[in-house]
Amino acid sequence: MARIVQKYGGTSVGSVERIKHVASRIEQSVVQGHELVVVVSAMGKSTDQLVQLAGDITDNPSKREMDMLLSTGEQVTISLLTMALHELGIEAISLTGWQAGMQTEASHGNARISEINSKRMEEELQSGKVVIVAGFQGISGTEITTLGRGGSDTTAVAIAAALKASRCDIYTDVTGVFTTDPRYIKSARKLHSISYDEMLEMANLGAGVLHPRAVEFAKNYDVPLMVASSMEDVIGTIIEEEVSMEQSLIVRGIAFENDVTKVTVSGLPNHLNTLSKLFTTLSSHQVNVDIIVQNQYDDNHVNISFSITQSSLKETLAVLQEAQEELQFTDIHFEEELAKVSIVGSGMVSNPGVAAQMFEVLAENEIYIKMVSTSEIKVSVVIEEANMVLAVERLHEAFQLAEEAEQVQEEVSSL
Amino acid sequence: MARIVQKYGGTSVGSVERIKHVASRIEQSVVQGHELVVVVSAMGKSTDQLVQLAGDITDNPSKREMDMLLSTGEQVTISLLTMALHELGIEAISLTGWQAGMQTEASHGNARISEINSKRMEEELQSGKVVIVAGFQGISGTEITTLGRGGSDTTAVAIAAALKASRCDIYTDVTGVFTTDPRYIKSARKLHSISYDEMLEMANLGAGVLHPRAVEFAKNYDVPLMVASSMEDVIGTIIEEEVSMEQSLIVRGIAFENDVTKVTVSGLPNHLNTLSKLFTTLSSHQVNVDIIVQNQYDDNHVNISFSITQSSLKETLAVLQEAQEELQFTDIHFEEELAKVSIVGSGMVSNPGVAAQMFEVLAENEIYIKMVSTSEIKVSVVIEEANMVLAVERLHEAFQLAEEAEQVQEEVSSL
Repeated sequence: MARIVQKYGGTSVGSVERIKHVASRIEQSVVQGHELVVVVSAMGKSTDQLVQLAGDITDNPSKREMDMLLSTGEQVTISLLTMALHELGIEAISLTGWQAGMQTEASHGNARISEINSKRMEEELQSGKVVIVAGFQGISGTEITTLGRGGSDTTAVAIAAALKASRCDIYTDVTGVFTTDPRYIKSARKLHSISYDEMLEMANLGAGVLHPRAVEFAKNYDVPLMVASSMEDVIGTIIEEEVSMEQSLIVRGIAFENDVTKVTVSGLPNHLNTLSKLFTTLSSHQVNVDIIVQNQYDDNHVNISFSITQSSLKETLAVLQEAQEELQFTDIHFEEELAKVSIVGSGMVSNPGVAAQMFEVLAENEIYIKMVSTSEIKVSVVIEEANMVLAVERLHEAFQLAEEAEQVQEEVSSL
Repeated sequence: MARIVQKYGGTSVGSVERIKHVASRIEQSVVQGHELVVVVSAMGKSTDQLVQLAGDITDNPSKREMDMLLSTGEQVTISLLTMALHELGIEAISLTGWQAGMQTEASHGNARISEINSKRMEEELQSGKVVIVAGFQGISGTEITTLGRGGSDTTAVAIAAALKASRCDIYTDVTGVFTTDPRYIKSARKLHSISYDEMLEMANLGAGVLHPRAVEFAKNYDVPLMVASSMEDVIGTIIEEEVSMEQSLIVRGIAFENDVTKVTVSGLPNHLNTLSKLFTTLSSHQVNVDIIVQNQYDDNHVNISFSITQSSLKETLAVLQEAQEELQFTDIHFEEELAKVSIVGSGMVSNPGVAAQMFEVLAENEIYIKMVSTSEIKVSVVIEEANMVLAVERLHEAFQLAEEAEQVQEEVSSL
């Protein structure tokens, strides 16, 4: 018998039928004798519908009132799921964020969890109940707050940490973390386990399985995570500090995303504060910049390139043009229909040739690299979108990511 | 400048357009310099939709979880209405039941308000904000409760009492309280004012303008109520202790409802506890009984007749048949397609001939009376449903209820 936190996302509880299905999965864990806290998101598209209602009233809703509005979504799910458990004869109780003691900082729309007062949850667990908690929401004083994107994952991990749960299971619409996106690359293989840092890089790189914030939280509090499917009954991917099985692999996964746009601002003065001025201007207009590359072209001037999503191009150009006088640049260029491909693996730290090998594979396939960005456990390149899938296929092959498939298959069957 | 509580029901906030309309009405009161607390219900059919979701999961939902589920409805409305006010440049803040300090007894589904901790509302009013409160809901300890039917009206009146508001305005889809239902009786006239007791009788008799519970609360705390339309800009009906204008009228209004069924249980033993046993059995199965008539037919036996709604007939018969041995009756008869017609007026107390006059009017029109029930300010009769509208028309005429229409019209124009 273990204490386990489970989290089911919006798709997994998207209809009455799915809620009943989730209840039957919870029943299995109850039968196994586990103590369970279950964190759920709002049903499928219900958050979108609430956002739409607000949008019909105002273009600029107060963040406090949006929290008030959106927090109803999870509250609906927790009550329905609890009823479904009762219907199966399982003792269960639903708790909103504030009832569960999810205290956050005093900010709306994107609050961070500051503390969990887990007394109520402990009491309910002790009385033999399954505790169903509304994800994504908390309380600051007597104000309802929400945690922003990835909030439900973060709720689950934070509760697992506070209750010293032995595991936090994130049930979603994929069966685990793959070496790369199986929708594009047939030979993609599900990883049996992955380290927090690798998962962080993968998550940040658009492998949308798990929100980076939740992974960070799990890493900081050493909560073992499991990502698995809420629909299929197959084993998922374990995320934890020690990765034993596949340690030998240098590259663990390949993440990629399209809709990347590269913007180059040229003729900027070569001053100490040029970079900070440029990106402060952009971030003050909520433009999120990904990769940044700076190069000097004469003693007095620099060019700076950065990547953004396609959808923020219009805003970016408008912001820059307005600030041209202040930033003192001469030109703006942009290049659309690009993609970012990244290789991730904690083994890279001690293997300096990995980036070179990546560039070589791309060169062999006549794929031009537009930008490069590296971290200790990751190398990202920006290339033409048309070459994205080809690049990932070739890299997946070159780094032998498909090869342990059979071995993992055997492990799963023997469990 | 006055402190006013306004309440808008589900139809009045049934769509984004209507919410915007309510916001513009609130704006008018703000411009007039009033301090405002506004209580709202869930949007139109949203409560029904939530009930449907629960019904798809279980036939027997936990009352606690239903409260958790249903309380989201008003929370959606308060946030949207607050956004609509912000959009008009009005300072406003939404408060859930628990944030507004609506403390209730520890029961779910039909909790009574025990106390209002109005500190937060006072603070927000003091800071110049319009306070938007979720009706129908409260808190007991840290448990979300709901107040059951008429809960939003009761919330509004209770807040008006706690905040010592000078008035509580109930905005609804009718323009006020009428002498009888204007949908059936053309000559029905809107009352300028009515006493709490008269309104209580009217409300209990199915004039669905205002929930009796709210009227009772208003009477106990001496809160002047106004019932008016949220759509049309016409003056409504004032409900207060002193009714000056129309004191002379003995009968103030005529209420009626159809779908009445009469059940007669015969051959019951003439014991002290026969009545209590019969109606305890029925109420323990949630059968609501309205009029009760008992008559003795020999020394040892009594017949008891009572009226119920059509929809509870099946349940009633089942309950009685099951309890036949215990209750020791010989027969059950029932009569469907009946209606109840009631005349109401506080002037009746000192006018003993009113009931007789009612019976005479009915007799003149060959309308048979199946049951009679009287109170100090009300006489109800049960008749055939087919005669309902005729009976009301004739009584409305006989008691001269249409006649002051012009006088009231003049009063309204002179305001």
